Amino acid sequence: MHHPSMRRMRATLLAAALVQAFAAGGALAASPNDTLVSPQVQAGRVVFSMYAPEAAAVQLSGEMFDYGKAVPLAKGADGVWSLAVPDVAPGTYRYTFRIGGADVVDPRNTEATRSQTRVQSLVHVPGIAVEDDQPVPHGAVAVVEYRSPVFAVPRRMHVYTPPGYSPDKGPYPVLYLLHGGGDSDENWSTVGRAGIILDNLIAAGKARPMIVVMPAGHVPAADGSIAGAMVAMGADADKDPFTRDLIGTIIPYVESHYAASTRARDRAIAGLSMGGVQTGNIALAYSDKFPWVGIFSSGWFPDVRPEVERLHGKDMDKAAKSERLMWVGYGKTDIARDNSKAMLKMFAAHGMRYQELETEGGHTYANWRRYLAQFAPLLFRD
Amino acid sequence: MHHPSMRRMRATLLAAALVQAFAAGGALAASPNDTLVSPQVQAGRVVFSMYAPEAAAVQLSGEMFDYGKAVPLAKGADGVWSLAVPDVAPGTYRYTFRIGGADVVDPRNTEATRSQTRVQSLVHVPGIAVEDDQPVPHGAVAVVEYRSPVFAVPRRMHVYTPPGYSPDKGPYPVLYLLHGGGDSDENWSTVGRAGIILDNLIAAGKARPMIVVMPAGHVPAADGSIAGAMVAMGADADKDPFTRDLIGTIIPYVESHYAASTRARDRAIAGLSMGGVQTGNIALAYSDKFPWVGIFSSGWFPDVRPEVERLHGKDMDKAAKSERLMWVGYGKTDIARDNSKAMLKMFAAHGMRYQELETEGGHTYANWRRYLAQFAPLLFRD
Repeated sequence: MHHPSMRRMRATLLAAALVQAFAAGGALAASPNDTLVSPQVQAGRVVFSMYAPEAAAVQLSGEMFDYGKAVPLAKGADGVWSLAVPDVAPGTYRYTFRIGGADVVDPRNTEATRSQTRVQSLVHVPGIAVEDDQPVPHGAVAVVEYRSPVFAVPRRMHVYTPPGYSPDKGPYPVLYLLHGGGDSDENWSTVGRAGIILDNLIAAGKARPMIVVMPAGHVPAADGSIAGAMVAMGADADKDPFTRDLIGTIIPYVESHYAASTRARDRAIAGLSMGGVQTGNIALAYSDKFPWVGIFSSGWFPDVRPEVERLHGKDMDKAAKSERLMWVGYGKTDIARDNSKAMLKMFAAHGMRYQELETEGGHTYANWRRYLAQFAPLLFRD
Repeated sequence: MHHPSMRRMRATLLAAALVQAFAAGGALAASPNDTLVSPQVQAGRVVFSMYAPEAAAVQLSGEMFDYGKAVPLAKGADGVWSLAVPDVAPGTYRYTFRIGGADVVDPRNTEATRSQTRVQSLVHVPGIAVEDDQPVPHGAVAVVEYRSPVFAVPRRMHVYTPPGYSPDKGPYPVLYLLHGGGDSDENWSTVGRAGIILDNLIAAGKARPMIVVMPAGHVPAADGSIAGAMVAMGADADKDPFTRDLIGTIIPYVESHYAASTRARDRAIAGLSMGGVQTGNIALAYSDKFPWVGIFSSGWFPDVRPEVERLHGKDMDKAAKSERLMWVGYGKTDIARDNSKAMLKMFAAHGMRYQELETEGGHTYANWRRYLAQFAPLLFRD
């Protein structure tokens, strides 16, 4: 055993600086940026900072503010712009800085999340136990790329396996969890905290260990471009390439690559917003495959409802006679509140039973995380 | 079956716009940003673009340029800045835009990669077959969070499982693959394309199906902060919390949670730059655990070499008598070239055998991807 010498410490620091500078492509000259910490979650507030010495102005937008709001940061003498936002409620928020008319991520925050078309920074304010990273056993989230006969380009999904996942302990039930319009298959695992929520529910004995499959819901343009991505929002599941991919490729993939149960009773589907419409279409057209259903902040638009009646009237009659969970949640100020209530009215007219949860708040991930935490414990109960 | 009506299409578009606007927190007003595609990989060039109507200047930096270079973009009448970079060689490059003195990711590129302290955008230029996303079966990369007695804060690793991974087909050999200083456990899977490279090698029958474990190499400060992250670059593996975590927690975790072989002959370790020093220390101190070793663009600094001799002289003598692979690669203009050659001289003085590859180029991921593609086929051969 030995004590580190000053000489060795110098060498260590030199090596670290050199390697870091070359590996990361950073600037060699020291700058306030090198040690800047952003965001800083402090008691009762969050401080956001950005080093931008030559900027004329920097603004902050994000899910902790009302939609569309942009709040100016103040510039310090060291070229660091900062803003302390008070009273940020516990939760997870996506945010960007606006600089020179561009919306960009926080350069000092390595927690970033990719939606369908953009990258945003993430900050988590602890305080909602089921959404916090607790010292409980953790599952794993895998990024899975696969080919589908439905699409010309490779497709991707995120797959959560529960803590201690092992084929010996399976087969596991599977929840198919769909994202909203504008989002990607990553978002339930980042801003949605699906894995963390499941870890906590499973550790508390509130949810059964399950696999959660989070597919990509947008349908790419023929050239595979993101910019050309389309959203299928009609009522005919079989016309939707997303559904054809889910039924024909994703489910067989999951049931052959994972220790996944193939019994219908061990299969659930849920989705938010656009993913809720997809969920509704699929749950009605394929009611034998998905006895557990969750629709978060969604429902068909008025123009589409007659088509739902026409295509799925008999499916709804059938659903009224079957034992299944139909769980619907929406917020009091949710843009999807009217559609949700109209959907439930249609279900009721066909004799379908459902569970309804109206919460405070709007069309937000704060609600969708809450809905997932309410919904998952109800699944796969005999 | 029915044809979609104009009315339905309107509803679809309305729904898509509403949901997308609310879900993504984007601006409702149309702007050139909404349809901007960046980067665009075209024949012989890459076009980078950023909508920043109020910026005074925008520059581009990245791994396709010499280190430290920043090239100005030109502003168009629509507020979109752009730059066509000619003659970008096939490969994968991290890049950022500089705006107002801040280095930020491309707001329109959802391919972003997180190093230890920053987020950068990624662009891939096809043309190196083993690094391209080919229509072959794909493995999966999982993000695994775990607790270690060595650290007060949760730790994370990325774990690649090969195409068709199934316990029935195991046990699989395992490569532990370490990142460089400034990088994170994510980087081998993004800019390093480890999963893609393995997929291609396995599909071609050139590498055995294997699990690749990519741990986090930096040691957090006592408060867990990234900014306080330290780099351990001495020669004493047992003093390095990273090694204690790898040997005491990661390997047992992998061998109990995956269909991983527990035989030493089925275990390999490799690392680049800082990860190469860690690899060297571990490979010498634990030669019985890792008979397959790769050191990419690394080697001890001159001040540390006497300590290596003192601590590991007998280990090197022992290694000379054992059958093992010691594979060392470095570039002609690599900042680690001298350290690599001095390391090999020390190995040779102890009678150790090794394979040496000197390539064009420097301390770059272009070389590290190439080294992985050379190294992986040599592993786990009887």
